[in-house]
Amino acid sequence: MSDMNQLETAMVLLMQTFDKYAAGQGNRDALTQAEAKTLLEKELPGLIKASKNPEKVEEMLKSLDLNGDKEIDFSEFMVLVNCVACNFREVLMN
Amino acid sequence: MSDMNQLETAMVLLMQTFDKYAAGQGNRDALTQAEAKTLLEKELPGLIKASKNPEKVEEMLKSLDLNGDKEIDFSEFMVLVNCVACNFREVLMN
Repeated sequence: MSDMNQLETAMVLLMQTFDKYAAGQGNRDALTQAEAKTLLEKELPGLIKASKNPEKVEEMLKSLDLNGDKEIDFSEFMVLVNCVACNFREVLMN
Repeated sequence: MSDMNQLETAMVLLMQTFDKYAAGQGNRDALTQAEAKTLLEKELPGLIKASKNPEKVEEMLKSLDLNGDKEIDFSEFMVLVNCVACNFREVLMN
């Protein structure tokens, strides 16, 4: 990854994170609801704590499944990343 | 950035990249069309070369301005990142 610039490095890190959790059950190119929840709990523990309402997390996970195929593909995962990055920008950048 | 995990690191790298180019003209929290084009040329030179059609790049830049305010905010920039990451996944991961 040494000869990649910041943007390329960020995209590869996102893909590696996604692949790590998608590799578990079923389709390796998509997250099941359970895999997505594990990803959130492990990679964004602050988000889960901040939500104080487990139903909200479940709701968010279901809302990510934009095409209704019961799985979250990489593009749908990126919608989550966009949402988290926009909402936690202050926290992440300080 | 050392105590952050891969996902948090990726988000910070994306914000730093965005901020670097948004800091130029006008609104520091958004890219002008010119700033967005410079970002693409500098950070994703392969994308520009691969497109072989400058109008396509202009079209893509205009399509990013989802709310029509003539600027590209961070969330709109993330739509570009999502699109590039999905379409250049093979190239980036090998």
